[in-house]
Amino acid sequence: MTVAVGVTGATGRMGREVVAAVREREDCEVAFAVNREPDGTTVEGVAVEPAVEFDALLGEHEPDAVVDFTGPDSALEYTHACIEADAEVAFVTGTTGFDDAALADLEAASESIPLLHAPNFARGVQALVNVVGQAVRNLPGYDVELVETHHNGKRDAPSGTANRLLEEIEAHGDFTGRNHGREGEEPREEGEIGVHALRAGDVTGEHEVILAGNDEEVRLTHRAEDRGVFAAGAVDAAVWIAGRKAGRYDFADVIDE
Amino acid sequence: MTVAVGVTGATGRMGREVVAAVREREDCEVAFAVNREPDGTTVEGVAVEPAVEFDALLGEHEPDAVVDFTGPDSALEYTHACIEADAEVAFVTGTTGFDDAALADLEAASESIPLLHAPNFARGVQALVNVVGQAVRNLPGYDVELVETHHNGKRDAPSGTANRLLEEIEAHGDFTGRNHGREGEEPREEGEIGVHALRAGDVTGEHEVILAGNDEEVRLTHRAEDRGVFAAGAVDAAVWIAGRKAGRYDFADVIDE
Amino acid sequence: MTVAVGVTGATGRMGREVVAAVREREDCEVAFAVNREPDGTTVEGVAVEPAVEFDALLGEHEPDAVVDFTGPDSALEYTHACIEADAEVAFVTGTTGFDDAALADLEAASESIPLLHAPNFARGVQALVNVVGQAVRNLPGYDVELVETHHNGKRDAPSGTANRLLEEIEAHGDFTGRNHGREGEEPREEGEIGVHALRAGDVTGEHEVILAGNDEEVRLTHRAEDRGVFAAGAVDAAVWIAGRKAGRYDFADVIDE
Amino acid sequence: MTVAVGVTGATGRMGREVVAAVREREDCEVAFAVNREPDGTTVEGVAVEPAVEFDALLGEHEPDAVVDFTGPDSALEYTHACIEADAEVAFVTGTTGFDDAALADLEAASESIPLLHAPNFARGVQALVNVVGQAVRNLPGYDVELVETHHNGKRDAPSGTANRLLEEIEAHGDFTGRNHGREGEEPREEGEIGVHALRAGDVTGEHEVILAGNDEEVRLTHRAEDRGVFAAGAVDAAVWIAGRKAGRYDFADVIDE
Repeated sequence: MTVAVGVTGATGRMGREVVAAVREREDCEVAFAVNREPDGTTVEGVAVEPAVEFDALLGEHEPDAVVDFTGPDSALEYTHACIEADAEVAFVTGTTGFDDAALADLEAASESIPLLHAPNFARGVQALVNVVGQAVRNLPGYDVELVETHHNGKRDAPSGTANRLLEEIEAHGDFTGRNHGREGEEPREEGEIGVHALRAGDVTGEHEVILAGNDEEVRLTHRAEDRGVFAAGAVDAAVWIAGRKAGRYDFADVIDE
Repeated sequence: MTVAVGVTGATGRMGREVVAAVREREDCEVAFAVNREPDGTTVEGVAVEPAVEFDALLGEHEPDAVVDFTGPDSALEYTHACIEADAEVAFVTGTTGFDDAALADLEAASESIPLLHAPNFARGVQALVNVVGQAVRNLPGYDVELVETHHNGKRDAPSGTANRLLEEIEAHGDFTGRNHGREGEEPREEGEIGVHALRAGDVTGEHEVILAGNDEEVRLTHRAEDRGVFAAGAVDAAVWIAGRKAGRYDFADVIDE
Repeated sequence: MTVAVGVTGATGRMGREVVAAVREREDCEVAFAVNREPDGTTVEGVAVEPAVEFDALLGEHEPDAVVDFTGPDSALEYTHACIEADAEVAFVTGTTGFDDAALADLEAASESIPLLHAPNFARGVQALVNVVGQAVRNLPGYDVELVETHHNGKRDAPSGTANRLLEEIEAHGDFTGRNHGREGEEPREEGEIGVHALRAGDVTGEHEVILAGNDEEVRLTHRAEDRGVFAAGAVDAAVWIAGRKAGRYDFADVIDE
Repeated sequence: MTVAVGVTGATGRMGREVVAAVREREDCEVAFAVNREPDGTTVEGVAVEPAVEFDALLGEHEPDAVVDFTGPDSALEYTHACIEADAEVAFVTGTTGFDDAALADLEAASESIPLLHAPNFARGVQALVNVVGQAVRNLPGYDVELVETHHNGKRDAPSGTANRLLEEIEAHGDFTGRNHGREGEEPREEGEIGVHALRAGDVTGEHEVILAGNDEEVRLTHRAEDRGVFAAGAVDAAVWIAGRKAGRYDFADVIDE
């Protein structure tokens, strides 16, 4: 079976990567590509249609899934269009910045269509989240420190993925708080998690969790070579979700299978 | 409850570490210490008795467990002495170099007493083994390479722990073979595992498993700071196994609990 | 002063990066771009001319330097065209695979024009070469191991850059040979350099030199995030070499300044 | 020539290591060992004399050098005793915590005897300081971040060695300040140096300097396996300084030779 994928935000930085990722695989194809302001351009040889044609394109091409990296408002509009389409189409989104109302809207949408929303579509990041939880359980009482490195233009610290890892660490162990940087007379407090945000050059993204105690250390690290990895993960999710029944899915479900 | 621990090979490099590790904890104490050639010495203030007194010392001190880092022959003699003692005593051994007959003998002994034999008592190594299996399952088709580093006096390559990790990797994925070093025109064959043994300076022991594909890498690393970590793990095992019913236990059981 | 740069092999993988790198800087500009089979395409908005027009383009645009990533034959033809041009034009090439006769030809050419040939135009690799020599001198008798990691499609091992590092190590210390991979009963021989070629996923390129002894280790590492780094270095070289007198230059000269 | 070494603070943590380090070498020997409160003990088989005998021991054994890891007051007393001795004896000290007056006193002493004071006697740390300066000069404009990791009981952050590295970085490049930890909306400011102090488990000491820019990274790292490395470096210094003329020497002089 070839999975037909509609791509939104197709002329954006991530949208281009998604079109390229679909075209590299033999088990899926680009059904159509849209963008708010398509300017008559093509992406990787695929014509980009204006977003107002989205409903018509759903009817015409009947895609199995839509992959979306846009903004919160656009993503919700596309979601509702998928619900109202006659075709059964799954919605995979890596859009970030949804507020609580929008998240509730997405949750409600998942009663009508298969829906997957993830902050990070790198399989390796999900694998890291999985193994970090296990390591924390296996090494109780060990000191935990997290180091993340990103390019020098990143505005927020720590990264969203670092926060996801911290939640996982805290869910599996007994920790008292996070310490962002140390300076001066400041010995380590028992149970704190040290969090360190390096910003340097053009690093795509690196996350390292260190567990140390008892004369030994375990280091669990993920490194992205290229942002293409995030597009590839989203397409994996699209192929996986195609044909499933309505519901809310996680990227972890894709990986675990 | 305070767990009483007998220590064999007490004047050896690992035996000394075991005595020290027991004395550092409040939930256990040294019941007695023996060595083949004790020379009337003490270790960490504990008098070391001659090995021929082992049977008598079992009767006199009724230890909950014996921790053994000796040689294959001694380890088996101590095992049998524990079986024949009136006291119910568990046997924890990190001795290596048992041949098949000796291993069968240990297996048989575990029908009479609780017995735990492990090649490596670092909790972190066991945690690494656990997470490596999970990562391999989560990242199918990724290239796997293993790098281990030890001091320049180590004779065999790869290390026993590296072999344990390789078995775990192979048990959880679809691999075609191991490649120890590459030179010349030798592109990577699909499914091979690259194995690299670094020998340098005084490194106690480092093991790293790399999973790479899809524009990303996951690196899972263990590093021992000091051989004391192996003694501490053996004492953890002794405290854990004390009072259990006869049977063969793994260090993984200790960690998982 | 704005340095005018001619780009050869402009539709190739590296040529495209060079055009992009020139356009990102304010102190240089693309004078023209050529390729053997230009197909009427543009690269980053720059029209690509056929290679047969190279002589005419030199006369018309009078570039300060040509940057070349092509093949050995093309590179030599372009070199000779630069010598014969009326304009004073420098030649910077990252082309590899020259045989001895071709290298002699390049050497001779450097009597007529400023010429720079380098196997690797990453500033950081040159910096690594520099510091590795110094570290080896500072830590005599330390064990040295080299680990390099590249994508799984790389055919040769170790990499050209690894060989360059090994030459530097050997030039600054007292070593007996190289050992590519260890397996079995094979303790480290004094003075050997262990060389380890990892091949995994999509790694652009990583080189690490480890010096260990005396209960300590020094690790000197370079990692390329993207092949764009090589283009950027070549353009640095072009800006640096523009206007210099005829002669053979090294990329190290560019860095040292 | 066998260099005769007097050891002060011989029953202290570092003093013991120094006695052991001298005894491991064939080119030097322990002339005598002293301690404030010797308690009639021996260290590595060497009798430890009371500190009040220091003057007499200098006269009796005529050591070539004294190696001192004590406290500021003791170190100065020993220094003055060396000046007043008839024997020509060099003074090597790794004692820390001298105030400005004490440092001036040491400086004055170096007019009478050969004197070497260093905060860190790991050859590799000195090698790291050397190469960091060179790398900063070779990679102008690159972002620099420093990460140091020590055991969880260390009270101050960043470490003294990190401060030494930061001084070296700042001496060789154009930097605007240090940033100890990032959190929240805090993009990297051009020219800042990020400083990160990890505290975890039993790590003896690790320092890493990262230079990143231009799609590449250089990482320069030192890791101590054991505090014995510091004693070994001090003994290297003692052998090197023996017989030199009066003056102030640095550990860098020892390494550079």
